[in-house]
Amino acid sequence: MSRVACVKNQFVPLRGAQVSMLDRGYQFADGIYEVVTLWNGRLVDESPHLARMERSLAALEIPMPMSVRAIQIRIRELLRRHRLKNGLVYIQITRGEAMRNHLFTGEMTPIFTMCLLPARFPTSQEKSEGVRVITAPDQRWARCDIKSIALLPNMLTRMASYRAGAKEAWQINAQGNITEGSLSNAYIVRADGVIQTHPADRSILGGIRREMVLKLAKQHGMALIEKPFTLDDVKRATEAFMSSASSFVLPITTVDDITIGNGAVGHVTEKLMTLYEAQVLAIPRVM
Amino acid sequence: MSRVACVKNQFVPLRGAQVSMLDRGYQFADGIYEVVTLWNGRLVDESPHLARMERSLAALEIPMPMSVRAIQIRIRELLRRHRLKNGLVYIQITRGEAMRNHLFTGEMTPIFTMCLLPARFPTSQEKSEGVRVITAPDQRWARCDIKSIALLPNMLTRMASYRAGAKEAWQINAQGNITEGSLSNAYIVRADGVIQTHPADRSILGGIRREMVLKLAKQHGMALIEKPFTLDDVKRATEAFMSSASSFVLPITTVDDITIGNGAVGHVTEKLMTLYEAQVLAIPRVM
Repeated sequence: MSRVACVKNQFVPLRGAQVSMLDRGYQFADGIYEVVTLWNGRLVDESPHLARMERSLAALEIPMPMSVRAIQIRIRELLRRHRLKNGLVYIQITRGEAMRNHLFTGEMTPIFTMCLLPARFPTSQEKSEGVRVITAPDQRWARCDIKSIALLPNMLTRMASYRAGAKEAWQINAQGNITEGSLSNAYIVRADGVIQTHPADRSILGGIRREMVLKLAKQHGMALIEKPFTLDDVKRATEAFMSSASSFVLPITTVDDITIGNGAVGHVTEKLMTLYEAQVLAIPRVM
Repeated sequence: MSRVACVKNQFVPLRGAQVSMLDRGYQFADGIYEVVTLWNGRLVDESPHLARMERSLAALEIPMPMSVRAIQIRIRELLRRHRLKNGLVYIQITRGEAMRNHLFTGEMTPIFTMCLLPARFPTSQEKSEGVRVITAPDQRWARCDIKSIALLPNMLTRMASYRAGAKEAWQINAQGNITEGSLSNAYIVRADGVIQTHPADRSILGGIRREMVLKLAKQHGMALIEKPFTLDDVKRATEAFMSSASSFVLPITTVDDITIGNGAVGHVTEKLMTLYEAQVLAIPRVM
């Protein structure tokens, strides 16, 4: 199968899909992105992703290149052309093309690009045994709440975790708090059973999975606190887990060299994994 | 005149010059850039710019796409095709094209793009009367020493200064220190005549103009200290100025609503402007 991309309004082969070198996304990282997971024929949390896309664009004063409905139609056309049941719908919107200048104007025409990336779901071993993460300094800018394509810091941190043989890196900011992973949100379960995660302020990306995890926890009467936690809190935690577009809820059993709890996947994490999967299975199939 | 660009090894019309949407520069801001000023037919500080390019690439583990000599040959070909005496040679190098994934490999082929942007030199009024800058929070990441294309924070800050009717914004970090402008370095002259500027650590970009200003000051026995300064220091300063690729040394007479010294361009700034211009005039013409 050869993959296709949607560039502006045209479907073209992904290999060969091009944008202008004067695209401000290329020269200033002046744009945003979203990743909607296609899982067993279902688009997971599509509406919240597209709502966040609108929020990111508004924060950067980039107009929507087309309506949400028009984007949804293009997503379905992209899927129809691939005939796959699993993948990641990658959508990027940049401010437009212009002779390079830091200053932008309202007349620029936003550039829409989209493609279907291969799925990278966790293995069953990762899900049943948990994964290891390392910690790393949070090197990012002050507006991590905007899902911008200025991903160089995230990319370098993810690379560092990969080289350390870890699934992810939890980032520790100047205050000593763990904000989130390089591409996932971070959670611990305290000895008293309370789930703890960093509040959704400007220092983290308010993940869609994170919103869903919090919603599920509340719906099922699980205790929860949105409050920063430190590496010391991690040492005292009984469970740890991450959430991301492609991993949903994934247990973490080691942080740096700290074994979390008894080293096995905990009950709270397992319950959230089960609840999330049940919720996703209830989504009508599009493929 | 229609402008041309160099993409990989080909010269093509700038309007229409394209890169892959899978270029990691587009999806991750995974790349670096340099701007070499063409001023009255002279390439200003070309060698230091290309040396910094090598340092930025090394910091990101991106291989040089070609030798420095090969880049210099292409710069001259670019100039030959434009027959202009003034402009900005914009060079960008990204890690390469790959199916989107935070992780990179050493096998990726770096992408070289280059074009000649219109010159935006200060007006004679700006040079004789000085400009106004505002201050703004430093929102950038922890590695401002790498000249990466992840310029979204710089772009937003420059835009804020433009909207405030100012030439630039001096960024104030969490420690209350002024690091630098959104696209220029920042200096004050203290009441005792000492030039003060932030040291070239990871919180600023070690500007090429900055290096030259420091070198000229030393050569001419001007007192100088590389030490962070605050807004209070600015209030007590007798002069202020900025330096950048296209402004060389440019006097600042107002910071926010603070009039610097007596509001006129000071002697130290004037001397540095004269010295810099003399040094640039001594460069052999390429056009």
